Amino acid sequence: MKVRIAINGYGTVGKRVADAVSAQDDMEVAGVTKTRPTYEARMALDRGYRLYAASEKHLASFRAAGIDPSGTLEDLLQEVDVVVDGTPKRSGYKASYEKAAVKAIWQGGEEHSLTNLSFNAYANYEEGLGADYLRVPSCNSTGLIRTLYPLLVEYDIEEVLAVMVRRAADPWDTKRGPINAIEPVLKIPSHHGPDVQSVLPDLRIRTIAVKVPTTIMHLHAVTVRMGSKATAEEVVELWRRTPRIRFVQEGEGIASTAQVMEMARDLQRPRSDLYEIVIWEDGVQVSDKTLYYFQAVHQEADVVPENVDAIRTMMEIEADKKVGIRKTDLSLGIPTAF
Amino acid sequence: MKVRIAINGYGTVGKRVADAVSAQDDMEVAGVTKTRPTYEARMALDRGYRLYAASEKHLASFRAAGIDPSGTLEDLLQEVDVVVDGTPKRSGYKASYEKAAVKAIWQGGEEHSLTNLSFNAYANYEEGLGADYLRVPSCNSTGLIRTLYPLLVEYDIEEVLAVMVRRAADPWDTKRGPINAIEPVLKIPSHHGPDVQSVLPDLRIRTIAVKVPTTIMHLHAVTVRMGSKATAEEVVELWRRTPRIRFVQEGEGIASTAQVMEMARDLQRPRSDLYEIVIWEDGVQVSDKTLYYFQAVHQEADVVPENVDAIRTMMEIEADKKVGIRKTDLSLGIPTAF
Amino acid sequence: MKVRIAINGYGTVGKRVADAVSAQDDMEVAGVTKTRPTYEARMALDRGYRLYAASEKHLASFRAAGIDPSGTLEDLLQEVDVVVDGTPKRSGYKASYEKAAVKAIWQGGEEHSLTNLSFNAYANYEEGLGADYLRVPSCNSTGLIRTLYPLLVEYDIEEVLAVMVRRAADPWDTKRGPINAIEPVLKIPSHHGPDVQSVLPDLRIRTIAVKVPTTIMHLHAVTVRMGSKATAEEVVELWRRTPRIRFVQEGEGIASTAQVMEMARDLQRPRSDLYEIVIWEDGVQVSDKTLYYFQAVHQEADVVPENVDAIRTMMEIEADKKVGIRKTDLSLGIPTAF
Amino acid sequence: MKVRIAINGYGTVGKRVADAVSAQDDMEVAGVTKTRPTYEARMALDRGYRLYAASEKHLASFRAAGIDPSGTLEDLLQEVDVVVDGTPKRSGYKASYEKAAVKAIWQGGEEHSLTNLSFNAYANYEEGLGADYLRVPSCNSTGLIRTLYPLLVEYDIEEVLAVMVRRAADPWDTKRGPINAIEPVLKIPSHHGPDVQSVLPDLRIRTIAVKVPTTIMHLHAVTVRMGSKATAEEVVELWRRTPRIRFVQEGEGIASTAQVMEMARDLQRPRSDLYEIVIWEDGVQVSDKTLYYFQAVHQEADVVPENVDAIRTMMEIEADKKVGIRKTDLSLGIPTAF
Repeated sequence: MKVRIAINGYGTVGKRVADAVSAQDDMEVAGVTKTRPTYEARMALDRGYRLYAASEKHLASFRAAGIDPSGTLEDLLQEVDVVVDGTPKRSGYKASYEKAAVKAIWQGGEEHSLTNLSFNAYANYEEGLGADYLRVPSCNSTGLIRTLYPLLVEYDIEEVLAVMVRRAADPWDTKRGPINAIEPVLKIPSHHGPDVQSVLPDLRIRTIAVKVPTTIMHLHAVTVRMGSKATAEEVVELWRRTPRIRFVQEGEGIASTAQVMEMARDLQRPRSDLYEIVIWEDGVQVSDKTLYYFQAVHQEADVVPENVDAIRTMMEIEADKKVGIRKTDLSLGIPTAF
Repeated sequence: MKVRIAINGYGTVGKRVADAVSAQDDMEVAGVTKTRPTYEARMALDRGYRLYAASEKHLASFRAAGIDPSGTLEDLLQEVDVVVDGTPKRSGYKASYEKAAVKAIWQGGEEHSLTNLSFNAYANYEEGLGADYLRVPSCNSTGLIRTLYPLLVEYDIEEVLAVMVRRAADPWDTKRGPINAIEPVLKIPSHHGPDVQSVLPDLRIRTIAVKVPTTIMHLHAVTVRMGSKATAEEVVELWRRTPRIRFVQEGEGIASTAQVMEMARDLQRPRSDLYEIVIWEDGVQVSDKTLYYFQAVHQEADVVPENVDAIRTMMEIEADKKVGIRKTDLSLGIPTAF
Repeated sequence: MKVRIAINGYGTVGKRVADAVSAQDDMEVAGVTKTRPTYEARMALDRGYRLYAASEKHLASFRAAGIDPSGTLEDLLQEVDVVVDGTPKRSGYKASYEKAAVKAIWQGGEEHSLTNLSFNAYANYEEGLGADYLRVPSCNSTGLIRTLYPLLVEYDIEEVLAVMVRRAADPWDTKRGPINAIEPVLKIPSHHGPDVQSVLPDLRIRTIAVKVPTTIMHLHAVTVRMGSKATAEEVVELWRRTPRIRFVQEGEGIASTAQVMEMARDLQRPRSDLYEIVIWEDGVQVSDKTLYYFQAVHQEADVVPENVDAIRTMMEIEADKKVGIRKTDLSLGIPTAF
Repeated sequence: MKVRIAINGYGTVGKRVADAVSAQDDMEVAGVTKTRPTYEARMALDRGYRLYAASEKHLASFRAAGIDPSGTLEDLLQEVDVVVDGTPKRSGYKASYEKAAVKAIWQGGEEHSLTNLSFNAYANYEEGLGADYLRVPSCNSTGLIRTLYPLLVEYDIEEVLAVMVRRAADPWDTKRGPINAIEPVLKIPSHHGPDVQSVLPDLRIRTIAVKVPTTIMHLHAVTVRMGSKATAEEVVELWRRTPRIRFVQEGEGIASTAQVMEMARDLQRPRSDLYEIVIWEDGVQVSDKTLYYFQAVHQEADVVPENVDAIRTMMEIEADKKVGIRKTDLSLGIPTAF
């Protein structure tokens, strides 16, 4: 008997999680919700998902467009074990989920306080076991946790400074700018630092964020002041044994996020997604007990595996984190780390 | 016995044609060439293609990078029936192909005079039958031929004016600008007009080209002055019966090339490619005997099906254009028009 | 005694008109309004303009920021002859202006029906004589009127097709996208066609608009089907005798809007503005009785001279259009056409 | 008797230095050189500069364009005291300057070793006194030196980490990309760190550079680990007494480099240039003995005042740095710091 999943909000994250869930042998998508009869709603139907309106009031616009939803979110929640919430931040569906007594996973747009459990598979899989509610931190935070958690375990880290050069809008989002400017986030640390600490409370980290006119990836310049000695080779070796990290080489022509995404397209995954955090291997450097590295984050996709893992741990399908992660990675075509 | 294909130049077009050829039951990729051991070369090997150096002098850099090519282009040409040339324009390989007595297909970067046969499957499939050399016109020209050819057959066209708002660089190409400018091509007609006429010599067409800072698609604003009467509905209906045209609706949220490519990603094709020319259905309009429409061209992918068709007609595997086109489209997941 | 001018809305157009008015010997800026104490408000004070809050309710935020406005718009209107409205479209100040019995000039964001008089200095200066209310069409429409009006007078024009490749946002406007997409305006004609006809009712013109990710200029590809014969040289010569047109040459390195704006910076005008419409001289072409040309419009600045002219004609300071235009152009450093 | 200056290379920096020199009462532009008859050459003539061809072989193209240069660089060098070299990096004119026995100033594209004297007016004005050759570091390095030098003098600085988010191309430069990508400079420190140390050898600084698709400014996120105590207010106060620093406020609507440049346009300086380094006052922060700040650099203009200062110190016109800097700043409309 497969675990039944609702996707509330079939958007950037929701549609990817839907497809990732469909690729598992122990879970299935019971239905997805949309608020309006857009092309994404049609694509959901074309892919065979049952479509539900977000609420009664949204039904009319679907019917006017010749689409007959299978019901509303309320109906859908009756049929599922877990809901993955991909709605815009502060959409406020928690009461609905509680009422329907379904477990729920939120994304990084929400505050940690909504669930009091922020989740990263490799860092705290066990905390998710049997949980009713959890939250997967944002793409940027997940990216930082992926590469910093193994360092935190292996080394004595004095302090991390991560400067995050952020894409200003997702590829489909043509409303947002800037078109030709750089925009600093004056607040330091940016919200990402505390967000990383919601999973790694012992990590001393400061984050600085800057928004730039690109759509395809975030890039992080990370500086780690280390109390213990390490070499670049050792750190690279450590990351090779860490799930969901992929190395690229400037020497092979991957000089920017553009070539990273081109490589991702060549991997032939759905939507040309890159679930892994990319590190430039020829950019990892240690000097004066400080580790420097550059990583790139495919903001639309990196949290997708964590959403699948979260379902498995919340439903207590799999208690061993390595087994759980490996199962997810195999299903999504991600090279396994163990 | 499958037809054996060499891909000379495993780049933007070459790698896509390689995968498209691999999806056919009557042809196969014998090998692909690269000049340097880039990530694309590694991806070719990962996909199982035999890799050849473009020439003897290129072998060393591969070996230095730990890659052992299966030989050189010269070796590869001995083993194939047809070579698909995806090298930069004016690379000048014709003599090599002649020497090896293999048929060859070039892309739109080359002049019509190189082959004296410019090819579009729906427009002149029969001319390709048994041909030794042909050329598939550029992405923009192919896009125009796709939507104009059926109009030319069905209606009396007095004149076409196509204004082509062109992406300035491919997504991976980070060397080229502009970053923040619009650049007109002062020569009118731009080279696209005569290029379209290399396939449709009877079409009176003027093209105007303007380069803009985007990477994902070209957009054409097309104006067709018609001698005979037509309605927008009739034209849309005609295009529905035409291969490799896909309609989108602004009313469903597809307002720009960004959402077109997002839709393409949802289609889950390799590299998120869109082989079809996209027309905004709610933008097709006829007034005063003039037809107006907007179409978008995925510059990396639209010529791929034509390359496959070309192989089939050159090798005389399939003499009926509708059967040939349909076979290609089925193999690539393109909805068939007949 | 100078004519006294209020600038309601010291923004993109308002601040430029304020400076242009200040450069005249027969008019002066009595004050400018802002809704919030932004850096632009501070710059207005630094330039010596008296600052007024848009209304009573806006006073508090200025005072909180340590700025003491000279009063409100209502106060300002008591002291002026003409108000130049640079507020966002449909701000709805007409009743206030009527109540204060001041003449008013609106910008192209408003509909023609607001004033029933759309104004272009060279085309219909005389219609503005003594008028109480008028409207200067948008930057794009003004650009088209500038180059088409002399053609309309001199030649028999059968039809104009203008494809307008539009900048998506002004340089300071970092909220708007797209960052990486082309967005067609499906409605044909776009609103620009009828807008041009509000000044040139006899012109048969269709306009097509496409939005692209740049901030610095619009570019128009214009096609004019002519009933009478003309050569490119004659048309260029005609435009040389037309005010506010400037020629550039691709042959001298001006290949795009970027170099046009670089040239404008070298002209050392305030804010690097370019009041003239730019035409590529080596891009003007006539073939088959059709005239083709490319023009670029500095969207922030081209309507500024028309605002000054409008004041002069509305106040009946100068009844002769050529004298009026020449006076404005001399004051702003624009080469005079006559 | 005014000091006579040659501008070799009337490009981005050269044309600005020419105009800045023209604004001084103790120096004058004897002539400027160009290699080709571009629009910039014409603008130079329009501004009244005598134009020289870079060499004999360049004369022909000018004459073909109807421009008659006053001679060649060789001729020009006979008439001047100092040459400001604004040619592309490694153009290699040093021997020519030596032969003509003129003093010379190079820009940041050259290595420190070319002159063994890298110059920043406030940091080492005295070292330039009577010097024959010096070099003004790049726009980015000058920007860092401007804000770090006073800190170095006033406080005990343990270490600086500056992450430099760089514009990819100048506004006029439409050849360069990327259009939609972020490109890290893998080498750490980037060349800027050692470049800053060429002026401030005692400063411990690491720099990290990332290229982004914008044309208008660089943005630096600077982190200063301090041995001594300091408050944000004290540091701001210190910078207020430092020349060529300007504060902006996000609270007043300056949220990105776009609004900084809009403010610069409102300052009405030539070419809308901003000679000062901009610091977000509401972004200066000290916590845990670490100072954080964001600064923006107008890459085309910030080195211009230093070029003027350099002439004055090399020619020993003014030995007192504060007097020299103040004189330059007054002439260019920069608010004086002392």
